[in-house]
Amino acid sequence: MDVIQSSSWSQLEALAKKPFDLASAGALADDGRIGKMVCTSAGLRLLYATQRIEAQTLSALQDFASEHHLVERYQEMRQGAVINRIDGWESENRQVLHTSSRDLFSSHPAEPVSAKQARIEYQKLQAFLDDLGNGTILGSTEKPFTTMINVGIGGSDLGPRSIYEALKAYRIDGRTVRFISNVDPDDAAEVLASTDLSETLVNVVSKSGTTLETLTNEALVRQAFKDQGLDPTKHFVAVTGAGSPMDNPDHYLRSFYMFDYIGGRYSSSSMVGCVMLGFALGFEQLGEFLRGAHEMDKAAANPVLDENMPLLLALLGVWNHNFLGYPTLAILPYSQALHRFPAHLQQCDMESNGKSVTTAGTQVQTKTGPIIWGEPGTNGQHAFYQLLHQGTEIVPIEFIGFLCSQYGLDITIDETTSQQKLVANLLAQSVALASGQAHENPNKIFRGNRPSSLILGNKLDPQTMGALLALYEAKIVFQGFSWQINSFDQEGVQLGKVLASRFLDSMSSRQKSGLSIEKQFLKVLEK
Amino acid sequence: MDVIQSSSWSQLEALAKKPFDLASAGALADDGRIGKMVCTSAGLRLLYATQRIEAQTLSALQDFASEHHLVERYQEMRQGAVINRIDGWESENRQVLHTSSRDLFSSHPAEPVSAKQARIEYQKLQAFLDDLGNGTILGSTEKPFTTMINVGIGGSDLGPRSIYEALKAYRIDGRTVRFISNVDPDDAAEVLASTDLSETLVNVVSKSGTTLETLTNEALVRQAFKDQGLDPTKHFVAVTGAGSPMDNPDHYLRSFYMFDYIGGRYSSSSMVGCVMLGFALGFEQLGEFLRGAHEMDKAAANPVLDENMPLLLALLGVWNHNFLGYPTLAILPYSQALHRFPAHLQQCDMESNGKSVTTAGTQVQTKTGPIIWGEPGTNGQHAFYQLLHQGTEIVPIEFIGFLCSQYGLDITIDETTSQQKLVANLLAQSVALASGQAHENPNKIFRGNRPSSLILGNKLDPQTMGALLALYEAKIVFQGFSWQINSFDQEGVQLGKVLASRFLDSMSSRQKSGLSIEKQFLKVLEK
Repeated sequence: MDVIQSSSWSQLEALAKKPFDLASAGALADDGRIGKMVCTSAGLRLLYATQRIEAQTLSALQDFASEHHLVERYQEMRQGAVINRIDGWESENRQVLHTSSRDLFSSHPAEPVSAKQARIEYQKLQAFLDDLGNGTILGSTEKPFTTMINVGIGGSDLGPRSIYEALKAYRIDGRTVRFISNVDPDDAAEVLASTDLSETLVNVVSKSGTTLETLTNEALVRQAFKDQGLDPTKHFVAVTGAGSPMDNPDHYLRSFYMFDYIGGRYSSSSMVGCVMLGFALGFEQLGEFLRGAHEMDKAAANPVLDENMPLLLALLGVWNHNFLGYPTLAILPYSQALHRFPAHLQQCDMESNGKSVTTAGTQVQTKTGPIIWGEPGTNGQHAFYQLLHQGTEIVPIEFIGFLCSQYGLDITIDETTSQQKLVANLLAQSVALASGQAHENPNKIFRGNRPSSLILGNKLDPQTMGALLALYEAKIVFQGFSWQINSFDQEGVQLGKVLASRFLDSMSSRQKSGLSIEKQFLKVLEK
Repeated sequence: MDVIQSSSWSQLEALAKKPFDLASAGALADDGRIGKMVCTSAGLRLLYATQRIEAQTLSALQDFASEHHLVERYQEMRQGAVINRIDGWESENRQVLHTSSRDLFSSHPAEPVSAKQARIEYQKLQAFLDDLGNGTILGSTEKPFTTMINVGIGGSDLGPRSIYEALKAYRIDGRTVRFISNVDPDDAAEVLASTDLSETLVNVVSKSGTTLETLTNEALVRQAFKDQGLDPTKHFVAVTGAGSPMDNPDHYLRSFYMFDYIGGRYSSSSMVGCVMLGFALGFEQLGEFLRGAHEMDKAAANPVLDENMPLLLALLGVWNHNFLGYPTLAILPYSQALHRFPAHLQQCDMESNGKSVTTAGTQVQTKTGPIIWGEPGTNGQHAFYQLLHQGTEIVPIEFIGFLCSQYGLDITIDETTSQQKLVANLLAQSVALASGQAHENPNKIFRGNRPSSLILGNKLDPQTMGALLALYEAKIVFQGFSWQINSFDQEGVQLGKVLASRFLDSMSSRQKSGLSIEKQFLKVLEK
């Protein structure tokens, strides 16, 4: 049965004809709305009184979750069901077990085989970090490692990098991480020009061991080591699939394994993120990060909608996207440390849910994943917020904020701290967007009714970051279940790859014949 | 007359019922389409054969430009017309003269008064840069300046920062720039923790001299200088309005002026960007940047649509947004150096054109500015491109690429260089999105007909960057003219500011009474 034929879908369609009016007088203050519409999971709070919903809507969303067995399906995923597939067609046919990469803290993990594999890698990593810390492993000129260069792209870059940026304040003194991802040679050049390679460990991340951009960048970096008379084999580690071309002790100090049941965009808490984060933060704080993620994974198993933050966030998104018709979602963290987190979520969400075919192999009848975008506030307030308040496109928003700063370096001006100003701005925006403002001057009218949610934490520490990551991973999975799509493959990136090789063919020959760009187009199109 | 009542609008509506089918067999190769649909301006090329248009569409867009006098209005702007206004209502009532900030190269500038003011500041800057270069000006411990910290937010941050990132490869040896913008105290803490202040010049940028975030960050940075026994007055320069609180020689080495006829988001080529860029790149290369921008300003005055790249880019955007109904635009540079350029354009475009009122004070009858977003490729290919190819949302794209790399550090693998791989990917994506692919497996179908344009340059150097900046500034202005809105005010950011102060009031008192976040909401809502 297609989701649009379900009774809870019809119920939501009916309610969407007259969504709650946030801009009417007293709407927000009414009946303790703000105090009631709060959900707490794994140390985070979600305030959602500024969404265009009321009790009936929540109840219909709960019916939707129940009718489509969303939580049961999530539990089946954690327990190892083969849900990365399209029925009746060639597909990846795999389990989906990123949750196992942090299921390290109980004697009864949800799926024991993958949890055991995760634990083995985790212990290998602990031993390696110990060896780095006590000087058992040194660079080729006997210096300890102070810098890591992470070479990866897509899921092997964006997620780990955004988490590193978020937790930089918690680094081990004197350690730093740089990233090379883009095939653009200037990207690597800039990093290499400003790094002391004799103290640098290089972490090369590719599941297949054959990712073109990563291999190209690895070759570039290896050459730079050789040019400086350094022995690359004493400076390189690999994160890759067992048996891949990169699983080779002749070339790497260590190989840490990733598994085919974890997709790139969900791999931040596997060795893909952990080797780098362990180097930067140390093993203890890495453990806190994984613990936070695991706590949120457990919270996502709660069948009660308003106690399950990932499910609630997912279904508020479905409400805005499918029933109120808003095509995008802005994720706006009021925290500079989270400046790359929207880019990671953009990847994780859009690669997962930018689909047009159901798991039954039929064309979807609904809109699937929205366009995800965002930048940190309050910077954004001085930029694109004009459109959020007065434009003709309505943009639902997820604000993320924290009550305390990371560094604790703060200054009081006009009786409030910078951190308080940050939080005040966050709260003010959600009210302004919801309530709007009447005015005689047409240019000063704010129509309001622009929905948002607030995700609030106490402080952006490793555990909180783990919870935040897992919150969004589970949200994306729940939305995929809601749209009946496979959130775990990425067939849409294949065609571009095929065509890129055709252009490359025409370029190699162009080195002799000097074809113009236009001619190259035509040559490729002829094929 | 509202734009939707114009005859060219109706003509375009009729054509939009059956837009050109890019996915039909041979559509792209047909009749030299790719070779014909190319526009060259100021050293950049725009390839637009992968848009859903044909000769008739272009002719209707030319009619639209003529009927609404778009080029004439642009020329009036450059010549000083007061176009930042809403007729009959209180409004800013100002000229719009960012083009004058680079109108330095002819004896007959389009608007002489503002061009003269620009030239005076430009010469002041030259003298200051000379003094820095020859050691006449030193820090409070007699050291030359190697680092600049730029303190600003919104237009005083995003544009200048994105240009600095783009042109970092051209820096004067040994000079570097850091940026502090967010009111988040961790933003400043991280920069201060890793900078040698004795060799640091601080550039504080605020037109009014009263921007809360900037003053807060300036106070924080000044305190850090004092804590290290350094005299801030020997390390700080200001970019501000003449007569503002920051125009004070007791506190600053120099004050450079900005003028009320240049809005923040259009100010990158005024002293707002030039003081920092001049420090980083030197006066000569700054001149190249301004020259490139000025060349594009002149190209935008050409009344022939297919010879005027800014106008063409603007009207292709109107076609996609208003007639084909696509709510967003992705700007995807295949250049790591441009990694912050989409964020700047997001600001410049959405703050300019996220409006609902015409310059006549009436409610708009059309969609105005789209949502702008983007990240550099090929990173994006490993991320959100899945949705671009197979999602249910159609996203028009502007790709930006260059034939040569900046650093020239490149490596040949499989007979092609990294830069060639970058360009091959760029071209391949535009073809894949347009042409699509049939397939038996429903999960491998690409429906195609997803429109894109390619903006190609030879190399991302200062002159090219200037042209690129001016291309987008003029594009945004042309779109604002098309929608009959005022692209130069920003009333939409006011309400949030008012509400933020109310929350801050409740927080100061909270320090005594300890109100929860929910209670603070209610207290603010009571007012």
